[in-house]
Amino acid sequence: PEKLKANVIEVFKKTKKLRQDDPRRVTHSLKVGLALTLVSLFYYFRPLYDGFRVSAIWAILTVVIVFEFTVGATLSKGLNRGFATLLAGALGVGAHYLACLSGEKGDHILRGLFVFLLAAASTFSRFFPRIKARYDYGVLIFILTFSMLAVSGYRDDEILKMAHQRLSTILIGCTICLVFSIFICPVWAGENLHNLVTVNMEKLASFLEGFGDEYFKMTEDRERVVILIDDKSFLQGYKSVLNSKASEESLANFARWEPGHGRFGFRHPWKEYLKIGALTRQCASQVEALNGYITSETQVPQEFQRNIQVSCTKMSSESAKALKALASAIKTMTYPSSADHHMANSKTAVNDLKTMLKAAMPENTDLLEVMPVATVASLLITIVTCMDKMTESVHELARLAHFKSVHPIVQQEFQRNIQVSCTKMSSESGKALKELASAIKTMTHSSSTDRHVENAKTTVNDLKTLLKAAMLENTDLLEVVPATTVASLLIKIVTCTDKSQSPFVSLPN
Amino acid sequence: PEKLKANVIEVFKKTKKLRQDDPRRVTHSLKVGLALTLVSLFYYFRPLYDGFRVSAIWAILTVVIVFEFTVGATLSKGLNRGFATLLAGALGVGAHYLACLSGEKGDHILRGLFVFLLAAASTFSRFFPRIKARYDYGVLIFILTFSMLAVSGYRDDEILKMAHQRLSTILIGCTICLVFSIFICPVWAGENLHNLVTVNMEKLASFLEGFGDEYFKMTEDRERVVILIDDKSFLQGYKSVLNSKASEESLANFARWEPGHGRFGFRHPWKEYLKIGALTRQCASQVEALNGYITSETQVPQEFQRNIQVSCTKMSSESAKALKALASAIKTMTYPSSADHHMANSKTAVNDLKTMLKAAMPENTDLLEVMPVATVASLLITIVTCMDKMTESVHELARLAHFKSVHPIVQQEFQRNIQVSCTKMSSESGKALKELASAIKTMTHSSSTDRHVENAKTTVNDLKTLLKAAMLENTDLLEVVPATTVASLLIKIVTCTDKSQSPFVSLPN
Repeated sequence: PEKLKANVIEVFKKTKKLRQDDPRRVTHSLKVGLALTLVSLFYYFRPLYDGFRVSAIWAILTVVIVFEFTVGATLSKGLNRGFATLLAGALGVGAHYLACLSGEKGDHILRGLFVFLLAAASTFSRFFPRIKARYDYGVLIFILTFSMLAVSGYRDDEILKMAHQRLSTILIGCTICLVFSIFICPVWAGENLHNLVTVNMEKLASFLEGFGDEYFKMTEDRERVVILIDDKSFLQGYKSVLNSKASEESLANFARWEPGHGRFGFRHPWKEYLKIGALTRQCASQVEALNGYITSETQVPQEFQRNIQVSCTKMSSESAKALKALASAIKTMTYPSSADHHMANSKTAVNDLKTMLKAAMPENTDLLEVMPVATVASLLITIVTCMDKMTESVHELARLAHFKSVHPIVQQEFQRNIQVSCTKMSSESGKALKELASAIKTMTHSSSTDRHVENAKTTVNDLKTLLKAAMLENTDLLEVVPATTVASLLIKIVTCTDKSQSPFVSLPN
Repeated sequence: PEKLKANVIEVFKKTKKLRQDDPRRVTHSLKVGLALTLVSLFYYFRPLYDGFRVSAIWAILTVVIVFEFTVGATLSKGLNRGFATLLAGALGVGAHYLACLSGEKGDHILRGLFVFLLAAASTFSRFFPRIKARYDYGVLIFILTFSMLAVSGYRDDEILKMAHQRLSTILIGCTICLVFSIFICPVWAGENLHNLVTVNMEKLASFLEGFGDEYFKMTEDRERVVILIDDKSFLQGYKSVLNSKASEESLANFARWEPGHGRFGFRHPWKEYLKIGALTRQCASQVEALNGYITSETQVPQEFQRNIQVSCTKMSSESAKALKALASAIKTMTYPSSADHHMANSKTAVNDLKTMLKAAMPENTDLLEVMPVATVASLLITIVTCMDKMTESVHELARLAHFKSVHPIVQQEFQRNIQVSCTKMSSESGKALKELASAIKTMTHSSSTDRHVENAKTTVNDLKTLLKAAMLENTDLLEVVPATTVASLLIKIVTCTDKSQSPFVSLPN
């Protein structure tokens, strides 16, 4: 009884965790329950039931089997089921009439032969990898419907009615599934794929982010710290990336069936996600090799290590930043321009390391002791190369999926910062010039000119301070140039206005 | 039309390849065809049909859906279907009577509520990874049967009959599937897993076997040979190992359902295969990192490379041999004793390399140039460590699965080699002693003693030659000791006999 209690508590905990990990699971369960209850109403309304009779069971069956977690999977199964039934229905009716043409004996033999041949051929077709991935369920339903039609002809001639009933009940079931799946809290396979790919990239990033510090921690402690893996869960997150191929591929398969939704168009390039996923796994493979060196207790000469520590940590952390930038670019569907910056940094770190390695070799270094660190450095270099390919892939995805260009946004942000200053500079200069003109016209002394010029000058200083501070971390200078040119010219104008006003300052009132 | 022709040819080629890769696929397709034809005979025999009527369709449905490629998968689906139907049937009938007890209005509401609650709860349970892996299909059938029973009660009270019909037709379908699956050219999931694990190990082995030569080829050519990957397919075989997790796990899941067959008992430790598979993938991950260095065109100082080439090649080739030995041990289900020998060799190579690295560092070595080779060496060392764990796992498997001890076999082979010699030594010495004794007794000179001693001595020489040649490559010396001791003592006896005979030789006739 105590054991039972413990088991029950265990199940409760797991249930809670499942729910917290993805609350959509609960919604999905409720949706399935609702859809089934709805479809069972068929039995309740006499007119509907009388139309279909026993065939109404197919509607229930369809809902139970077709309703999957993601919209794509539901669509895929529903369409497979619908088209397979249609095709098998047509063939089955054809086979039925063909069999009827021959005599009583020939009829039986022909029907048996049809079933045997079609079942064998269709079953074999399921071994083709492409059919297996996309149409497996359709082939199953095809065999099923055809056999049922071909065989039930033995008994009654209501075959057309039966085909019609089966098709329409299946259509009803599929429709209910699709409506529930698409319009009530939909779970899109495409979105899941999109998230899975970015989450995987982030997992790798958090390893690389922590790796440099973890690995080189010893220099501070002056002693090798054996790192307790258990405490460093962020270093283990990447493991799940290694085995993500199957789920990514099935999600991509389902995503192809989905209509456009949210930020994803109908022909969203899902294949590119697979390419990025493959590169992520390649990277994870290198990380797996790297991981072996965190825990290995090799003694590394302090001097040598200090020499390459900076470069390695930089390579690692910049790669991590690049990965995060790529992931967030995919997430927000913007061009991954900030990743380029980090990639450039990590490449610089690679070159720094190479230069350093040429120079830094102390005379009495024991190669054996150096080897682990050298391997780590070497693996990090491979990771940077791999990251380079990944950046390319993400750019390709951005191009194909028409990601928003991030340029105007950066400009806008920057512009907003200097807009106030520039507008003020411009307007104050304008006012000053107007005052000056009217002063000359009326040959009076205008004290307000002075004030406007002073205002404009203050704004110039404000702007300069602003420019010093406002430079965003990852700003592409090229994008900023137009705005700064405007600012620069306005400053010139203020200076000019100042000069054109000065002769008048000394004039007598 | 030309394109169509090309497509048709393409499909034909693929079909041929699928057939050649695994001829069991064709057999499976034919089996499915036969089973379906057989089950459709239900419609043909009037008495059977009259017993089941429309329900006979469930038998066809069961065959189409339950009949899977492997016995384990068929069993798993069949049992899931059977038990789920039984359980849902019982619950459904219960719910029916409960609903009947309440009034007309309450009846409808109660039925709807039952369906909703059970469907939602069951659907949620499918998110539990363990249920998903093993009982997914069962839960589906449970929902289906329960809804059908609960709902059809709206209309008729033949619910018990319906439950009974459905259960018996499903049982008939499952039985046909199982009979065809188990008794006609069975495809066992366990055997497939067994083969998959060994094939994966062999793929790694063929990479490691070729790696040393490929990587160090340059020393002969005095120039870096960029290796054309396309020509070296054996270096690419390991890639499929990286993604084998899903298929291994599903096979292991199915294997648990299978009865004992061939060399596998009912409680064969399939989980151990998963452990070995995981280690193989870990190893493959290192190999993936290693693979990057075959194609990289780094310039390595010749001198340094020659220094470690022998060790690295040995590490790589001995690991490959150990892997092959492990794979063949699993294949033949014998203790992997010969792998230990190779593991010891590769560990020696690791130590040799370490010693060499300490000594071999030339004074002006550029560390940057040395790095790739050092990384390769380092990765190879990691692979040897990984291999060590794998050897342990295979030993564990051998222990749990009661693999045949290979010892008597080796002894027998060895014994057969020296048996002839020993028997001859023994019998000739015996004859010589007898002759000698009778010669002393009768106080005559026995010329034949001389001959027998000579014969024995020749045999001793034969044996020595034999021993030099006969030492099997992987012989464990410990196993050989008993036989060699016998031989050694017999040699001593021959010498003794020779000595005891010599005083008589000089005697007068």
